[in-house]
Amino acid sequence: MKPNFSLRLRVFNLNCWGIPYLSKHRADRVKRLGDFLNRESFDLALLEEVWSEQDFQYLRQKLLPAYPAAHYFRSGIIGSGLCVFSKHPIQEFTQHIFTLNGYPYMIHHGDWFCGKAVGLLVLHLGGLVFNAYVTHLHAEYNRQKDIYLAHRVAQAWELAQFIHHTSKKADVVLLCGDLNLHPKDLGCRLLKEWTGLHDAYLETRDFKGPEEGCTMVPENCYVNRQELEQFPLGIRIDYVLYKAVSGLYISCKTLRTTTGHEPHSGSPLSDHEALMATLCVRHSPPQHNPSPTHGPAERSPLISVLREAWTELDQGMAQGRWWATIAGYVIGLGLLLLGLLCALAAGGEIREVAVLLWTPSVGLVLGAGAFYLFHVQEAKGLCRARAELQHVLGRAREAQNLGPESQPALLLGQQEGDRAEEQ
Amino acid sequence: MKPNFSLRLRVFNLNCWGIPYLSKHRADRVKRLGDFLNRESFDLALLEEVWSEQDFQYLRQKLLPAYPAAHYFRSGIIGSGLCVFSKHPIQEFTQHIFTLNGYPYMIHHGDWFCGKAVGLLVLHLGGLVFNAYVTHLHAEYNRQKDIYLAHRVAQAWELAQFIHHTSKKADVVLLCGDLNLHPKDLGCRLLKEWTGLHDAYLETRDFKGPEEGCTMVPENCYVNRQELEQFPLGIRIDYVLYKAVSGLYISCKTLRTTTGHEPHSGSPLSDHEALMATLCVRHSPPQHNPSPTHGPAERSPLISVLREAWTELDQGMAQGRWWATIAGYVIGLGLLLLGLLCALAAGGEIREVAVLLWTPSVGLVLGAGAFYLFHVQEAKGLCRARAELQHVLGRAREAQNLGPESQPALLLGQQEGDRAEEQ
Repeated sequence: MKPNFSLRLRVFNLNCWGIPYLSKHRADRVKRLGDFLNRESFDLALLEEVWSEQDFQYLRQKLLPAYPAAHYFRSGIIGSGLCVFSKHPIQEFTQHIFTLNGYPYMIHHGDWFCGKAVGLLVLHLGGLVFNAYVTHLHAEYNRQKDIYLAHRVAQAWELAQFIHHTSKKADVVLLCGDLNLHPKDLGCRLLKEWTGLHDAYLETRDFKGPEEGCTMVPENCYVNRQELEQFPLGIRIDYVLYKAVSGLYISCKTLRTTTGHEPHSGSPLSDHEALMATLCVRHSPPQHNPSPTHGPAERSPLISVLREAWTELDQGMAQGRWWATIAGYVIGLGLLLLGLLCALAAGGEIREVAVLLWTPSVGLVLGAGAFYLFHVQEAKGLCRARAELQHVLGRAREAQNLGPESQPALLLGQQEGDRAEEQ
Repeated sequence: MKPNFSLRLRVFNLNCWGIPYLSKHRADRVKRLGDFLNRESFDLALLEEVWSEQDFQYLRQKLLPAYPAAHYFRSGIIGSGLCVFSKHPIQEFTQHIFTLNGYPYMIHHGDWFCGKAVGLLVLHLGGLVFNAYVTHLHAEYNRQKDIYLAHRVAQAWELAQFIHHTSKKADVVLLCGDLNLHPKDLGCRLLKEWTGLHDAYLETRDFKGPEEGCTMVPENCYVNRQELEQFPLGIRIDYVLYKAVSGLYISCKTLRTTTGHEPHSGSPLSDHEALMATLCVRHSPPQHNPSPTHGPAERSPLISVLREAWTELDQGMAQGRWWATIAGYVIGLGLLLLGLLCALAAGGEIREVAVLLWTPSVGLVLGAGAFYLFHVQEAKGLCRARAELQHVLGRAREAQNLGPESQPALLLGQQEGDRAEEQ
């Protein structure tokens, strides 16, 4: 690589709001999105909420000349909704489906059926290894009483861990997607602190778009204004995040977002705004590059956010166990009722009523059984995330207190982490 | 690192057969396992089928002085059954739960409820980064008519991909576990070809244990001899696999397995045999080390096994879709029946029978609905694995035909992979 090496990368991200039969003007918006992507010819276009594979196939055909490589990340029952179009060959791809993703009985929210995930693409550009991630976390339906908070924090942690473990040899890491997290939300801070990723909106000196970088704005005709009641300017939940290894410097030259209208035709492409970033990667003396590995001085915010996330996951776990216990009682009562009904039917007393009630009682026991199993699995999933987090917390604390060279201290951190895990 | 650098690592692996209430002499075997591990003081003990967390906690307490670090990998409803005890501090850990893992309605097999997974530990030993993986794939209940074959192949692929993507900066990779795969089975070949892992049993010059390295032998009093009818010597389904980066050489100095009896007391520790490997890592000129990255000459077996796995996943996908279609018809018929019953009840004809049949019909529709959703998700999971595999196949083919330097050829491979994905 030459010392004056410099690489520009134009990236596009959009949550497409592509729910078949439900999203307004879907076919038209997908068509216009295809036209727009062809006109702009980005290096990489990362899309979320492309729920219909037909939409992906349509875009694929349309974009083939400008974006010869593409991939649709399949998962769950409906799908992850994630896909990607690339001007450059995709060397490798894989995906990770989040362990926890809402509740199957919250059918009207539907997230559980989607199989929310993070997709990874490995690209080789200018001699560098680029790991590009695209993701979509669980939606937030009620900010005041968010029953999915623990799940979203667990997803943010799994996402951070997936990036951490799969990007160790990457020169540049890029994460785009709809995180369903406001910039100061716990999940967002956790993700950024643990991965060392930087937020294009906060880093760039050249931003054009809605105030505060919002990606859901009241000006957009598809946005449900009631949902934005608390936020008159809109909310920022879609992100372009990046980092580079020591020796390389990555910056966001420009960041543009749509402003409730498609730049050319005027109608929005989606209920979310699109993010368009021009990133620049160049050589840099190591000291100019904020290292993704935290030094002792930088550990304090990491420790604080890890502690906060630990508490949230712990509460979620307790809640999950509580629901499992309730379901256990219902199963017990249902079984008692079934026994009673059998006895009544055998004894000939109110036989017809007993026979009539028998099937709903079986239904009750089976339903409560499924509910029990689901919440046992939920508690296990949260416990797993909490254990990983606790381990990192233990090591970060020790490194802060005693310096990173101190091996016995690190070991102690490990033990502390493990002890807490036993709780 | 000194030029005469050499590192010895003693590793223990056992499928513990620790099913609460069902596995014979469980408490006694766990106690003896603890005594044995304490006596032998391995560097790393990787265990499978520790289904009870109480057993893990018991072992943890017992092994604390000799193995200060430990972790239990929680997942699914019952758990992954995986845990690890280490003499050395664990730097990091995480896990990946397999997307596909049997069928929830096969309750008597129970694998679906376990949340089978692969656990990853990162250790720093002698200045080297060690990635140790522990796993347990779906059991094989009927070798002649194996309804889980596609799931096990998909699991082997996910396992291989997880190792591939998370070990890029590791100096040494170690995988232990019960793969439920015979050495020449498709899943085993796929895993070895794609990761470049070597089989300790095949590599070592000093093996002591049952003939052909079997890890389930008829001499073991806990083994169901009927299951081994086809294999009078036993079967080899538990493995120690490893590789090192170029510049390092890893070899298996000795490999011992138990032979149906615990070495000291005579009674078996489990229905599986334990594997005890002494590994040695030292410097090596790059050419002495078989590279995990396949050169063109080495690609032929990779291509052949990828093609075979592609076919298997494709068949599994077709099967999954077929079941979903059948379930779709049943839902349709169930809804028709419900309509008919409502009409009969409203009309007053055979009213009692109609009311009685109503609830089972609702049950039928709901059951078929759940069955439908499960198989839609299964087909999506298999399709995802097939797409990843197809991509690797396309690139491997091009690299074989046109040499690894040919970028346009690689791009073509990408396109081919993507075209097939569209099928």
